Amino acid sequence: MCELLGMSANVPTDICFSFTGFLHRGGGTGPHRDGWGIAFYEEGGYRDFRDPHPSVQSPIARLICDYPIKSNIVISHIRQANVGQVRLANTHPFVREMWGRPWCYAHNGQLADWQALPHSFYRPVGTTDSEHAFCWLLGELRGAFPEPPDDDGQRHALWETLHGLCERLRGLGVFNLLLADGEYLYTYCSSKLAHITRRAPFGRASLSDAELAVNFAEHTTPDDVVSVIATEPLTDNEAWVRMVPGELLVWQGGEIRARFKT
Amino acid sequence: MCELLGMSANVPTDICFSFTGFLHRGGGTGPHRDGWGIAFYEEGGYRDFRDPHPSVQSPIARLICDYPIKSNIVISHIRQANVGQVRLANTHPFVREMWGRPWCYAHNGQLADWQALPHSFYRPVGTTDSEHAFCWLLGELRGAFPEPPDDDGQRHALWETLHGLCERLRGLGVFNLLLADGEYLYTYCSSKLAHITRRAPFGRASLSDAELAVNFAEHTTPDDVVSVIATEPLTDNEAWVRMVPGELLVWQGGEIRARFKT
Repeated sequence: MCELLGMSANVPTDICFSFTGFLHRGGGTGPHRDGWGIAFYEEGGYRDFRDPHPSVQSPIARLICDYPIKSNIVISHIRQANVGQVRLANTHPFVREMWGRPWCYAHNGQLADWQALPHSFYRPVGTTDSEHAFCWLLGELRGAFPEPPDDDGQRHALWETLHGLCERLRGLGVFNLLLADGEYLYTYCSSKLAHITRRAPFGRASLSDAELAVNFAEHTTPDDVVSVIATEPLTDNEAWVRMVPGELLVWQGGEIRARFKT
Repeated sequence: MCELLGMSANVPTDICFSFTGFLHRGGGTGPHRDGWGIAFYEEGGYRDFRDPHPSVQSPIARLICDYPIKSNIVISHIRQANVGQVRLANTHPFVREMWGRPWCYAHNGQLADWQALPHSFYRPVGTTDSEHAFCWLLGELRGAFPEPPDDDGQRHALWETLHGLCERLRGLGVFNLLLADGEYLYTYCSSKLAHITRRAPFGRASLSDAELAVNFAEHTTPDDVVSVIATEPLTDNEAWVRMVPGELLVWQGGEIRARFKT
């Protein structure tokens, strides 16, 4: 199994603290030695960093810890390979452009009969069930919505369609998902995903996986809202909320904007 | 104007030497302060690093210099903005998936009337003439070749189509191009592009833009073939070949596989 980490915030925020704990699971406190990746939506663009090596040994991962990239949406993944070799093309997150926006995707779980999912606009570069499912999912969305939604009704219809597609993938196995388009972060729970929203008054947090604590009050303003979503809670002194199977949350600016259930 | 750097090699090769000279032009010896990027096709995948800051000051660029990523094809770009703000979404190289392969693109020059180029499969994320032209070019290729070529005749037809599309873009202004699909590197010259092929017996080279020399004989085997393509020659003691306007070269494994002229 792999692990997921996501962030949605109302101000550009660095994820160094959470990522430091998370990457220790990549061959340190966890068994996920088969690569890692992280994607940032920053003001004015998208970029990702991926490495097919264990995150605890990766000089690129160390750079990400030390070089605070401020972002409104982050998606990260550490991999324990099941389907597909350990290679760069099989390293999450995956990205495709739809409607002139970079859509970024990371998956935790394993699917059966995924080879039968048909492709239209998008084709996988690597050989994982995860990327195959992403290409199918995004192709289905694009088929149903050739143009981006431009009002709340259309947006709601898009999210309902996305929830239906996630439910179909959950029918094939385990499908925990982080997906983003630069404005919204979508988190879908098939078995395991937890979240926490930090806002004023900010307190202290200490990592479960590394000797590190932070006082968020020293790094934030009273209006900041920052939500972190992860496979397992990353801190041991805060109350994380576990999502329920079949639940899709739509995050914007650190807040839950919509919620869909089975 | 921006500057381009490309590499095609028959063995995975790091580009640290050339990149060290190249990035000095990004705010050091050159005026190209508006961002930089580099893309690597490695065994088993693709990744790129982009930064909207001057390359001489970028910690990510320093990492690329110090952390040898071995690759068969590299495309790099340093930017001096003309069309489009200085922001990550406007930072080359750009990438889109076609036929399950990541196609990577960087452009030097400036186009007129580019807004009229129609889009089909691909849409720009940013606001540059370069990315707009890329989305048009790749959409045209995909329209003409819905499936990848699977023999030499089809490949030649694809390359001829590509040459024709480049010629049309040259008709709109200055269009120097680096384009790659993981197997081939395509270089098209509109005004300025030079190349050098290094093979046994390997010798010494010294950078024009930084105090650095290398003896390639110490870092290679007798069978290695490594070609470097750049806007301006990067070394001052080797004989670079300048391309002629309207010329498209198709590189594979460090060798020129095909050549198209006006």
